[in-house]
Amino acid sequence: MMNEPIDPRDAERHRAKMAKRKAVQDAEVATKTTVEKGLLIVHTGPGKGKSTAAFGLALRMLGYGRSVGVVQFIKGAWHTGEKDAFSAFGDRVKWHTMGEGFTWETQDLARDKAAAQRAFEKAVELMADPTLSLVVLDELNIALRYDYLDLAEVIAALAARRPDLHVVVTGRNAKPDMLAAADLVTEMQLVKHHFAAGVKAQVGIEF
Amino acid sequence: MMNEPIDPRDAERHRAKMAKRKAVQDAEVATKTTVEKGLLIVHTGPGKGKSTAAFGLALRMLGYGRSVGVVQFIKGAWHTGEKDAFSAFGDRVKWHTMGEGFTWETQDLARDKAAAQRAFEKAVELMADPTLSLVVLDELNIALRYDYLDLAEVIAALAARRPDLHVVVTGRNAKPDMLAAADLVTEMQLVKHHFAAGVKAQVGIEF
Repeated sequence: MMNEPIDPRDAERHRAKMAKRKAVQDAEVATKTTVEKGLLIVHTGPGKGKSTAAFGLALRMLGYGRSVGVVQFIKGAWHTGEKDAFSAFGDRVKWHTMGEGFTWETQDLARDKAAAQRAFEKAVELMADPTLSLVVLDELNIALRYDYLDLAEVIAALAARRPDLHVVVTGRNAKPDMLAAADLVTEMQLVKHHFAAGVKAQVGIEF
Repeated sequence: MMNEPIDPRDAERHRAKMAKRKAVQDAEVATKTTVEKGLLIVHTGPGKGKSTAAFGLALRMLGYGRSVGVVQFIKGAWHTGEKDAFSAFGDRVKWHTMGEGFTWETQDLARDKAAAQRAFEKAVELMADPTLSLVVLDELNIALRYDYLDLAEVIAALAARRPDLHVVVTGRNAKPDMLAAADLVTEMQLVKHHFAAGVKAQVGIEF
């Protein structure tokens, strides 16, 4: 396929369309004035990819020679694949699994609150670490949703971070105050899922 | 915070809610019968995180000691951070940047089609590589959207892959036939973006 000769009119239409697109893109980039700003990024919504995209951002930072921190608030038993993969980057990744596994596995409110509180303290510690360019607060939204943590205190800690530190917060049902504080919010929507077709969770995909 | 004593009724309500949640979760897992199946995963939509989450999945696979392949169909100049980071995994990552940069940078239809065709041939080659557990076809949807490739031929090649190979296809405006062929579709929705506040693209976040 693709070997038919191209109609010159198609080629010209394509060139004109792309030239217009490039002009729009260039103009947009030219209007941006703030050069270095640490972003508060939120990945929320019911779809897949919230944590995975956060770890992908961490990977990209590592590719630029920078260092990253990760605090897992809830999924104690999950993401072992990523954790093992990040070990390839040695001490440039500070990884802390603080949660006790899925909250519905423990059924113990006092224990869940205490675990979330320890995770939050670790997050504050990492955000104060000047060697880190990005900190992932994985499933923080879940800890907030169940009121394991005080929302105002968490938002204040995020706002108090140094100006060039990027933070990624993941988890469905992000609180409105979290969305208001964020610079960049992406909502992952589930359009189609293989569980509905009777397919089990797959190694390396779901866990 | 979080040091107030917990009301025993709150603790019991929490326990009961979580026990119910666990029962639902356990029942759902028990109904899954297909054990190993390579998934066709599509990340689409206008939001951020489509490619990043795909690279996050690749990272997870690497964490399990497996190998992955990547073909970049469009963004020749982008994702250098990920590419450098993946070099930590040596020959367990086969990375091929085939695109010519953004299509609106080139404004040359014949050249764009030829580049997409070479990328597709590389994708077919990687999908036939028995050492790979997952292949990322980054921005394939864009190549299909501009009709640089024949959709039916691409769908047929995906369908003909070996049964346990996972493939992740990214790019906005996924074609309906691609969605129909997919096992798992996530749509990334842009809820809020810092460009609107005049903040430039940030190293390690946007590129």
